[in-house]
Amino acid sequence: MKAYEIRDGFGLDHLLLSERPAPTPGPGEVVVRVRATSLNYRDLLTVTGHYNPKQKLPLVPCSDAAGEVVAVGGGVSSVAVGDRVMTLFAPYWQAGAPTRQRLRNTLGGPLDGTLAERILLPAEGVVPLPPHLSYEAAATLPCAALTAWSALVTHGGVTAGDTVLVQGTGGVSIFALQIGLLLGARVIVTSKSDAKLERAKELGAWRTINYRRTPQWGVETRRLTGGRGVDHVVEVGGAGTLEQSLQAIRFGGTISVIGVLAGVAGELSIIPILMQHVRLQGILVGHREGCEAMCRAFDAHRLEPVIDRVFPFDEAPDALRYLAGGEHFGKIVVRGPADD
Amino acid sequence: MKAYEIRDGFGLDHLLLSERPAPTPGPGEVVVRVRATSLNYRDLLTVTGHYNPKQKLPLVPCSDAAGEVVAVGGGVSSVAVGDRVMTLFAPYWQAGAPTRQRLRNTLGGPLDGTLAERILLPAEGVVPLPPHLSYEAAATLPCAALTAWSALVTHGGVTAGDTVLVQGTGGVSIFALQIGLLLGARVIVTSKSDAKLERAKELGAWRTINYRRTPQWGVETRRLTGGRGVDHVVEVGGAGTLEQSLQAIRFGGTISVIGVLAGVAGELSIIPILMQHVRLQGILVGHREGCEAMCRAFDAHRLEPVIDRVFPFDEAPDALRYLAGGEHFGKIVVRGPADD
Amino acid sequence: MKAYEIRDGFGLDHLLLSERPAPTPGPGEVVVRVRATSLNYRDLLTVTGHYNPKQKLPLVPCSDAAGEVVAVGGGVSSVAVGDRVMTLFAPYWQAGAPTRQRLRNTLGGPLDGTLAERILLPAEGVVPLPPHLSYEAAATLPCAALTAWSALVTHGGVTAGDTVLVQGTGGVSIFALQIGLLLGARVIVTSKSDAKLERAKELGAWRTINYRRTPQWGVETRRLTGGRGVDHVVEVGGAGTLEQSLQAIRFGGTISVIGVLAGVAGELSIIPILMQHVRLQGILVGHREGCEAMCRAFDAHRLEPVIDRVFPFDEAPDALRYLAGGEHFGKIVVRGPADD
Amino acid sequence: MKAYEIRDGFGLDHLLLSERPAPTPGPGEVVVRVRATSLNYRDLLTVTGHYNPKQKLPLVPCSDAAGEVVAVGGGVSSVAVGDRVMTLFAPYWQAGAPTRQRLRNTLGGPLDGTLAERILLPAEGVVPLPPHLSYEAAATLPCAALTAWSALVTHGGVTAGDTVLVQGTGGVSIFALQIGLLLGARVIVTSKSDAKLERAKELGAWRTINYRRTPQWGVETRRLTGGRGVDHVVEVGGAGTLEQSLQAIRFGGTISVIGVLAGVAGELSIIPILMQHVRLQGILVGHREGCEAMCRAFDAHRLEPVIDRVFPFDEAPDALRYLAGGEHFGKIVVRGPADD
Repeated sequence: MKAYEIRDGFGLDHLLLSERPAPTPGPGEVVVRVRATSLNYRDLLTVTGHYNPKQKLPLVPCSDAAGEVVAVGGGVSSVAVGDRVMTLFAPYWQAGAPTRQRLRNTLGGPLDGTLAERILLPAEGVVPLPPHLSYEAAATLPCAALTAWSALVTHGGVTAGDTVLVQGTGGVSIFALQIGLLLGARVIVTSKSDAKLERAKELGAWRTINYRRTPQWGVETRRLTGGRGVDHVVEVGGAGTLEQSLQAIRFGGTISVIGVLAGVAGELSIIPILMQHVRLQGILVGHREGCEAMCRAFDAHRLEPVIDRVFPFDEAPDALRYLAGGEHFGKIVVRGPADD
Repeated sequence: MKAYEIRDGFGLDHLLLSERPAPTPGPGEVVVRVRATSLNYRDLLTVTGHYNPKQKLPLVPCSDAAGEVVAVGGGVSSVAVGDRVMTLFAPYWQAGAPTRQRLRNTLGGPLDGTLAERILLPAEGVVPLPPHLSYEAAATLPCAALTAWSALVTHGGVTAGDTVLVQGTGGVSIFALQIGLLLGARVIVTSKSDAKLERAKELGAWRTINYRRTPQWGVETRRLTGGRGVDHVVEVGGAGTLEQSLQAIRFGGTISVIGVLAGVAGELSIIPILMQHVRLQGILVGHREGCEAMCRAFDAHRLEPVIDRVFPFDEAPDALRYLAGGEHFGKIVVRGPADD
Repeated sequence: MKAYEIRDGFGLDHLLLSERPAPTPGPGEVVVRVRATSLNYRDLLTVTGHYNPKQKLPLVPCSDAAGEVVAVGGGVSSVAVGDRVMTLFAPYWQAGAPTRQRLRNTLGGPLDGTLAERILLPAEGVVPLPPHLSYEAAATLPCAALTAWSALVTHGGVTAGDTVLVQGTGGVSIFALQIGLLLGARVIVTSKSDAKLERAKELGAWRTINYRRTPQWGVETRRLTGGRGVDHVVEVGGAGTLEQSLQAIRFGGTISVIGVLAGVAGELSIIPILMQHVRLQGILVGHREGCEAMCRAFDAHRLEPVIDRVFPFDEAPDALRYLAGGEHFGKIVVRGPADD
Repeated sequence: MKAYEIRDGFGLDHLLLSERPAPTPGPGEVVVRVRATSLNYRDLLTVTGHYNPKQKLPLVPCSDAAGEVVAVGGGVSSVAVGDRVMTLFAPYWQAGAPTRQRLRNTLGGPLDGTLAERILLPAEGVVPLPPHLSYEAAATLPCAALTAWSALVTHGGVTAGDTVLVQGTGGVSIFALQIGLLLGARVIVTSKSDAKLERAKELGAWRTINYRRTPQWGVETRRLTGGRGVDHVVEVGGAGTLEQSLQAIRFGGTISVIGVLAGVAGELSIIPILMQHVRLQGILVGHREGCEAMCRAFDAHRLEPVIDRVFPFDEAPDALRYLAGGEHFGKIVVRGPADD
């Protein structure tokens, strides 16, 4: 079967299309025929060696996929051949507190990931798709949507009437916009592009801020909220944005620190955390229980992810380059390889 | 000034329009000119002597009101003359856990209530109105809407994709329907009237059940939810409904037991609570902090309460009789007395 | 190997010692050599057919055991041969919300239980023992101690300075006393026996009430707490005790309804729940994550369970009869069969 | 009456003993005769002008006091003349979420503080003393003990079997040690002084680390906890300690960032927050509801604060100098002025 491997070193040039033996499921395992993958910034960092320089190679990158189950091993009763499923970033984190053990084995590093024709997973590592979603749409959910859900719902308790700020228009941020709206929150979106802000408005953003024109967007956020600040910030940036986030947040509010920008260092003054009773909550995607709750919400609202562009399997490296360019709005999808 | 008093004994015949001296505010107090009052079932029980037979008379009944501040006492800075405000059922419950002390003094018994031209309140016992609401609309919020909010949000943690069941189409239930929708939940409504169920559908109910035709509505609820049961039941009835609610609730779900039907006795088998890990949570309206959060949600969504009928001040006893008849859908409002 | 089976019908007379083939572990499974079992009231109800009359027979009863791992199947890395472990009542409930699915398969019904020489379990269904505990001591933990932990910690949030009331001196209640003390709570114990109350005092009970002499122990509890009531009641009885519990509980307090008395019907008036903002929380043992946290607490404090009496394996039916007599204080243990 | 004022500029030399008119209570107010004050690091920063350089002068510094009520204004029913009470740092924060409004007015800046013979307070700004505590002991509670309580209990959920790390042996840290022990936690204490670590051991510390000999105390903490890390860190230091705290904390753990070191800037890399799912929670003392719960815990356990040294009123500036020296273990108390 076909699979992309990071081979012989890091860098986009070392992401090579390979032929691997098709996996067969052992007890408790399933094989999924991948129909679509979506890209996360972490995947780019992994390919370029910035995520975990000690990662052993070769590695199949990426952690998001949707497809159908094509084989199940002994003792598997939770899914059956033919089921439409997606992956879990951390297949062994089913519920409960985040622990080192539950989050040690994640797809796309250290475990082989999803940029392949078929993938071998523990049965508890796949989740049934919301019925209304295509494979391409569903492939965008495992990391970005679940991260936004964990930030706003599992750890954030965002509720109707709250105000949420999301930074930029990448995958997590657009999902946070959409999920925030489901929860009844008002959502402020920042971007450097008026065109993207316009699209965010069409999706339901309450207010938008062009941070190029308004670099002190924390102050502007406070103004927009009548001096109160926002209840929740989904922080996807680095040190510079966190400084503004601490301006934007209300007294006693929560800033979700999203885990996927691990390659980017940051520094911050901790005084505003102290003096404003702020909570900073690191978020590392989420567990299966959260994923299932999220899928119920997607299902109940027939919510459609925002896909920027779909690349054929052969152009996966171009898809990663496109991600690196930062021009996207929402998610970038790579189709699974076509049937022979 | 004009005020209704329960005088010389309980019963609707003892609810008499009286003339009382207009109140003047002491330190920390405000006087509100009542423009609208709304009725709760508790008010009916109070007038008929079923809520608290030891209540001292005369008593001005009712606890909901909206109007403008017409006088403030010394040291009051949180509100000013001219402010549009509503009442709090429990003016001394500002935030935090429910305690006997915080809930000892409530409007419409033991304290004088709102069915009057002017009312004297502690400054912390009034809350600014969401700007888009008329006095009549805002007067429906203090008990019924806040009870629904406390049940679903403060103590329920209802979130997008959850399923909520509300019983009937009275004030709390219709607010629970509307607030449930704001939160992204799917809401099932029960009623004995198809016409009312039709109106509930127009408001956004996901499914409806006529409990006259389907007395085993708990079983039907389970069927509608694919066997899972609902995440949350807003229980406003007595023993008979609770039995069905325990059929309708999912494993590990929450049943909010609404406090205002205190005159109705109930019995129940506790076994399903045990065996299904269910939570029963008594709800007694709510605190100011919850009320303010609710107002932000109403404001953000320009949510309009559902008013069944508005009675002039002179017909307040008829309004209570209409409430007793149980034919209403949403809230019953009584206008404040006209200016002379 | 030796095992007790409920055979050819319910009743203590049908609990028969049998010879069964020794189990061998499949992938993901382990075999535990049972060194000690402890009894829960549910076991008695199961044997007598009052817990689940539809239970298929033959059935090995009991769900608590401690012993050593003697064999592991393929793919098992979390435990190894020789590890000292105990069972989980619900081996598939690892963490997160209680769900029907997670709680469907429990030991001692519908799955075969622990009153046997060797038992076959999924690897995730065994938990390492706190090192200081003997097998006999550790065998008391899986149901009774975890139930008390779930009630007070996982769902109760009991903290230092709280007051907890526990009913009687059975397994769950004595663990609730011990765990309540660890948490810094003051614990009130009720019993009909002054001798048992004396022992409860020795274990650290703050106050005791003989409910035979003081049948209105709810009122007495309120008096002992200066009128405030207790923060938490661990309710192990039926309808009669719940009525007193609702007298004993403070405004806004929590009553944990313990799941093991499923055979006993109960009725209650719901009005006090409403009017006092009380929470009733059904508790069905607990999950692995809670069990591990509990073991850390036992380990940190070198806490020793209270064992009333240890029976040899051959006298297991007598042990159940002794349990039925209700004269015990703490837990009743049955030793595993001796090595041949 | 006597009072210390920061007058004519910041600095210990500007802390002058003055004569002020004795306060008389208006409606809703009380006057407390101060019998003892305790010092917090914030007081030192305030006197030296590092806490809030815009603070208007003259200002009476300090926020902790215990004494007896000597006068009450109109409408006060919650306390009476003769009651033994202590102050609340934020007298208007009674319960609920921290908000700018609730935390705007705090004692010892911007409001006049407690280093005086008599102080004027809103009635809701005083809390009855645990009966077993002397004035000197009780005066240590309002800031330091409540901060530790808020960190561990209100926002931390620390429970039996958890491991907590506290830094140094100042007031908050020693209270965190004592409260952690009440909750059943194991507590690790760091200090540069072996003598102080010895005293911490006597108070019940589980392990101690001399951070002068072991500057990588985060690594050492991880070793002491078998690689797991601690569940909770009470972070009272600046940037350097936070870096070690992020080494010491377990995956998914909580670091309470204590608000009183506001004068000390800090920088930190946010990556470990992300990658370990850590929560940083700013803590700004706490509310009355928390204070009352804490007092119940102190009362139930007859817990005695650790007082390093008691200074007479006339030597208050020396007491502050002693605090600045950092040689203390626990709290520094200043007696109220003697009766004439």
